[in-house]
Amino acid sequence: MPQQKIPVGILGATGVVGQRFIQLLEAHPWFEVTWLAASDRSAGQSYGDAVRWRLKTPIPERVLHMPVSNAAPEGAPRVIFAALDAGIARDLEPQFAAAGCAVVSNSSAFRMHENVPLVVPEVNAGHIALIEKQCWRKQSGGYIVTNPNCSAIGLVVALAPLHQKFGIESLFVTTMQAVSGAGYPGVASLDILGNVIPYIAKEEEKMEEETRKLLGQLAGDRVEPATFRMTAHCNRVAVEDGHTESVSVKLQRKADADELIAAFNEFRSTPQELKLPLAPAQPIFYDATPDRPQPRFDVDRGNGMTVSVGRLRPCGVLDYKFTVLSHNTIRGAAGAAILNAELLKAQGFLS
Amino acid sequence: MPQQKIPVGILGATGVVGQRFIQLLEAHPWFEVTWLAASDRSAGQSYGDAVRWRLKTPIPERVLHMPVSNAAPEGAPRVIFAALDAGIARDLEPQFAAAGCAVVSNSSAFRMHENVPLVVPEVNAGHIALIEKQCWRKQSGGYIVTNPNCSAIGLVVALAPLHQKFGIESLFVTTMQAVSGAGYPGVASLDILGNVIPYIAKEEEKMEEETRKLLGQLAGDRVEPATFRMTAHCNRVAVEDGHTESVSVKLQRKADADELIAAFNEFRSTPQELKLPLAPAQPIFYDATPDRPQPRFDVDRGNGMTVSVGRLRPCGVLDYKFTVLSHNTIRGAAGAAILNAELLKAQGFLS
Amino acid sequence: MPQQKIPVGILGATGVVGQRFIQLLEAHPWFEVTWLAASDRSAGQSYGDAVRWRLKTPIPERVLHMPVSNAAPEGAPRVIFAALDAGIARDLEPQFAAAGCAVVSNSSAFRMHENVPLVVPEVNAGHIALIEKQCWRKQSGGYIVTNPNCSAIGLVVALAPLHQKFGIESLFVTTMQAVSGAGYPGVASLDILGNVIPYIAKEEEKMEEETRKLLGQLAGDRVEPATFRMTAHCNRVAVEDGHTESVSVKLQRKADADELIAAFNEFRSTPQELKLPLAPAQPIFYDATPDRPQPRFDVDRGNGMTVSVGRLRPCGVLDYKFTVLSHNTIRGAAGAAILNAELLKAQGFLS
Amino acid sequence: MPQQKIPVGILGATGVVGQRFIQLLEAHPWFEVTWLAASDRSAGQSYGDAVRWRLKTPIPERVLHMPVSNAAPEGAPRVIFAALDAGIARDLEPQFAAAGCAVVSNSSAFRMHENVPLVVPEVNAGHIALIEKQCWRKQSGGYIVTNPNCSAIGLVVALAPLHQKFGIESLFVTTMQAVSGAGYPGVASLDILGNVIPYIAKEEEKMEEETRKLLGQLAGDRVEPATFRMTAHCNRVAVEDGHTESVSVKLQRKADADELIAAFNEFRSTPQELKLPLAPAQPIFYDATPDRPQPRFDVDRGNGMTVSVGRLRPCGVLDYKFTVLSHNTIRGAAGAAILNAELLKAQGFLS
Repeated sequence: MPQQKIPVGILGATGVVGQRFIQLLEAHPWFEVTWLAASDRSAGQSYGDAVRWRLKTPIPERVLHMPVSNAAPEGAPRVIFAALDAGIARDLEPQFAAAGCAVVSNSSAFRMHENVPLVVPEVNAGHIALIEKQCWRKQSGGYIVTNPNCSAIGLVVALAPLHQKFGIESLFVTTMQAVSGAGYPGVASLDILGNVIPYIAKEEEKMEEETRKLLGQLAGDRVEPATFRMTAHCNRVAVEDGHTESVSVKLQRKADADELIAAFNEFRSTPQELKLPLAPAQPIFYDATPDRPQPRFDVDRGNGMTVSVGRLRPCGVLDYKFTVLSHNTIRGAAGAAILNAELLKAQGFLS
Repeated sequence: MPQQKIPVGILGATGVVGQRFIQLLEAHPWFEVTWLAASDRSAGQSYGDAVRWRLKTPIPERVLHMPVSNAAPEGAPRVIFAALDAGIARDLEPQFAAAGCAVVSNSSAFRMHENVPLVVPEVNAGHIALIEKQCWRKQSGGYIVTNPNCSAIGLVVALAPLHQKFGIESLFVTTMQAVSGAGYPGVASLDILGNVIPYIAKEEEKMEEETRKLLGQLAGDRVEPATFRMTAHCNRVAVEDGHTESVSVKLQRKADADELIAAFNEFRSTPQELKLPLAPAQPIFYDATPDRPQPRFDVDRGNGMTVSVGRLRPCGVLDYKFTVLSHNTIRGAAGAAILNAELLKAQGFLS
Repeated sequence: MPQQKIPVGILGATGVVGQRFIQLLEAHPWFEVTWLAASDRSAGQSYGDAVRWRLKTPIPERVLHMPVSNAAPEGAPRVIFAALDAGIARDLEPQFAAAGCAVVSNSSAFRMHENVPLVVPEVNAGHIALIEKQCWRKQSGGYIVTNPNCSAIGLVVALAPLHQKFGIESLFVTTMQAVSGAGYPGVASLDILGNVIPYIAKEEEKMEEETRKLLGQLAGDRVEPATFRMTAHCNRVAVEDGHTESVSVKLQRKADADELIAAFNEFRSTPQELKLPLAPAQPIFYDATPDRPQPRFDVDRGNGMTVSVGRLRPCGVLDYKFTVLSHNTIRGAAGAAILNAELLKAQGFLS
Repeated sequence: MPQQKIPVGILGATGVVGQRFIQLLEAHPWFEVTWLAASDRSAGQSYGDAVRWRLKTPIPERVLHMPVSNAAPEGAPRVIFAALDAGIARDLEPQFAAAGCAVVSNSSAFRMHENVPLVVPEVNAGHIALIEKQCWRKQSGGYIVTNPNCSAIGLVVALAPLHQKFGIESLFVTTMQAVSGAGYPGVASLDILGNVIPYIAKEEEKMEEETRKLLGQLAGDRVEPATFRMTAHCNRVAVEDGHTESVSVKLQRKADADELIAAFNEFRSTPQELKLPLAPAQPIFYDATPDRPQPRFDVDRGNGMTVSVGRLRPCGVLDYKFTVLSHNTIRGAAGAAILNAELLKAQGFLS
């Protein structure tokens, strides 16, 4: 007898990340989208009418005619994927958690909140335990779980095996981020054609604090952030999907380049052990080609869930430097949240 | 009585940098292009027929019908601007120097040679003295003077006042370089549209060694390179002109942000004192707008000779981080060489 | 004794076309910007604070600190350049005309109105006479004069000498239009990077009807539109400035290619005769290079006021085909309106 | 018992189209790549070393280590896909045909040759019969079959049902072609970033004559070309894959828009009847969305073999105008040739 799928809802279903949720949840073995919500402007319309679909695959037939609901907990299923702007998320996500929902959020609103787990399943699955500290959990069973910013997540996946094996001591990263990271309409073409924008509001702050929380230690009621020194330079470039990052790292324990490459390629973690549906077989792929990874060619590796690393070489200031590439709206947003929900399901938090 | 202009030749006149030489030397008060040379394939044609002109201003009328000569010293004037590939430069530039020419070169072939000055007039005008050590100088009067790589030059101009006032101790730079830096045809559109290429052959090595030589000290027969730690990550992006660089720096003497900004804005040097024709009134412009400098809007500042700096802020690993932008084929190539020639003229080395 | 400049105001001063007005009117010999108005959101701020400046030249110092007024006739000067969206123009422009202002408009709101002249000074300067039919002119002295859509104007300038000498019988045009034509923020980068959008709302209709009115005959109280057959296909491409158009034309009188090229190159008209300040010496430049004109290289010809034509060759359906390029925010918008105002001034309509 | 696959070779295997052949033939049910040939420069290397792979899917493992042979018939299999430049094809393809090979060519060299079929299986499958007129066929059994230029093929597929049902009388087309159509390295990034190039050498001539041959009638020994009037304007734009075309058409028999849309959507032909492996279920998809088709979103429809049509509306000069989009290296090159080979196989010409 086939198991029944878990009904899920999407908050912010018409945005760029909302669209990715719908695309990635189509034919998902565990979850089924039964409820879509968006701003008041869209509510009441069919999804097909409300959305300006910006993906290459067509809108799934089943979703096309689904009505868009108001963004309120009444009538919503118990599992909610949230793809809201931070300001709106700050108001709405607690309402859904208070109503008993598992809110699996891509927003930055509560990522740094002491009781809210900020999780990448390959990196810090154990931090999920923080949800037991949330007031909503105690009252209604609801809770909020978050994934990091799209620029932090590729970096953190790439760093995880290095941090486990050798210890990160200092970290330097410059990002070249795709326009889809800014949502839709997002970056105006007049701003980015033939250009680089060396600034993304609050991005560097998020990268730095989220990276430390993700690589930190759960210590009783809270996460003790990692203490390495870190700096981020964030830039926007004329790329559609895929954040490329130039990284330098100093390690606590010296290691040679082969050890690092092996650490990247051999890295497996909780999602692979649990065989979570969206988990890539290989979370990190080290590409030995001299001029890779590149967003145009490598962003879809592992269905957009594998992080590519390349160009490992000595660094004149820290120990090593290398390039990281990850898909910002799959591994860095919708796929990240779905993987979190799969982890929650596998660990019994969705029943 | 108007002074007669100095006749100059251009080696590699049909390439992207050769075209910039012609554009910038049109109406130059001191120099007049009288001789153009290019590969055997072009020799014998008129310049208008030989060149695939890639600039927005038209080919100067006077040059359009000028014949393209063979790249050999016979018949060449005594001042030669050289815009050759390194492999060719290695053969040809010494022939011209041996024939008595002042070879003002943009090539990398001899930049790191012990007796060859690598000069940015705002930064290390004194290094010009090295030409007296060259064998050709002693025999025929000829010599070679070089300017740095297009990615190094913007960085070095921006660092010069910091190094003078506060001392550089460590240096981290990630570049996002324009396609014109690769010449023509250079980067294929299939390689760069919607893409970032995290690799430019030998670029990181050049940036690191040239930066240290430029900021080094003349010590008798040679330059003692600066000893700070440095690392460069070089990337290519879909920008036509203008290299953007994310820089972090550690200083020997602590300074507050206002001191750094003042150091940038107040920096003046030999070219400004000598009122060299191509010297920008302000070599460095600090832009306080939060999201600048950007290549599309700022690359032509000071007719492409001013280096723009912005986004100065504390760095979590070193002391400060900021963004540098410079025009890679003007300040970073043809303009750099012309400024060197102007310096040579002002100091009596062209008579 | 120097003549005093005429004070002018700009309605919609913060938009892409408003910015071009400010850029082109800086140092204008006849006009001086003394009043800026924009939406309520901007009113009360200084221009420098209100605008998101998207041009390569800096904001003129004099304008930077000028206050932004409400978009109402009180306190406005008698000459108004209007760069408003059509919906807003429909309300506001008549208010200014009724208050006695000469409204020189770039909006589509009144272009096809029977009493409103739609003018390109090289093409149909005589149509200006229509303003005498406007009710406001009789009451307060005020009136509205318009210039065509940015996609129509390059076409019409290129056609003018052909229509005069040979007569247009049928006309086919496909446009490839720059993103600046859509204003700011305008086209989202996610919509246009690596893409062509084969649709611009109402653009084809505007091109077709405006072209016929511009090439029509003044007949008493109204313009008798030209009667040739015409069709337009309008597309958006990833170009910053410059509309490229593939044109086929059938002529009433047969002519050989040399006659057409001569007609393009020798075309001079009212603005050249009157030596209007913004008038290009040569309104149309025929470029004989096989692969020109191209927006990246040719858009700024004649300070953006010259229309480039190239690739004239026989057409298998009509008589000839060729390519037209014009700068959409200079010749096609702000420059067009200023040239109209210069014509009005030269003909005594601004006193 | 599983049928054995037919061994096939690829001439010009390292180019952009050669790569598409390898990608599309991976796991093909009828054909198996057993032989790769390229220029002398590549011969002797493994394919992985010789190629600069420019596709998003990885090089098939089986092909990676396959040796690259000299481009000569010795040792080649009996079915050859040819992706050569026209100049080289003119020499080499006859050598392979003379040696008894079925040469299924994407080159322009022999497309207009009287005895050589120029075929799109949905359009003129019957023209295949021309191979019986070829001298090689009589001598060795070998022959040459060609597919049209990448810009002609999407057009011709879209026109086929209109021509069959209503008759084409006149035809106007403006193309906006992707850079992959020019091969690799092909279009320099300095030529196309932020630009439109209104010229592609010989492209307009090819489109016009090939379209007429494809829609012509087999008449004994030769094809009687269609006699409608036609004109093509060809432009290059900054798009990676997908040629967009603005088309106007005059029909012999008047029809309303719904009839045309039905003709597009209901069109089925020989490849669908024969269930050829690469044949799309629906050769033409009419997209009723107002601003589609667009290359970024629609180019991969039907695995790149479906031609998209949209924006059907009345034309002021001819009868109707619409937009056509097709994938230039799949439907327009490698996929076209493979579909031709499948047709040959289904009709017994490969045994």
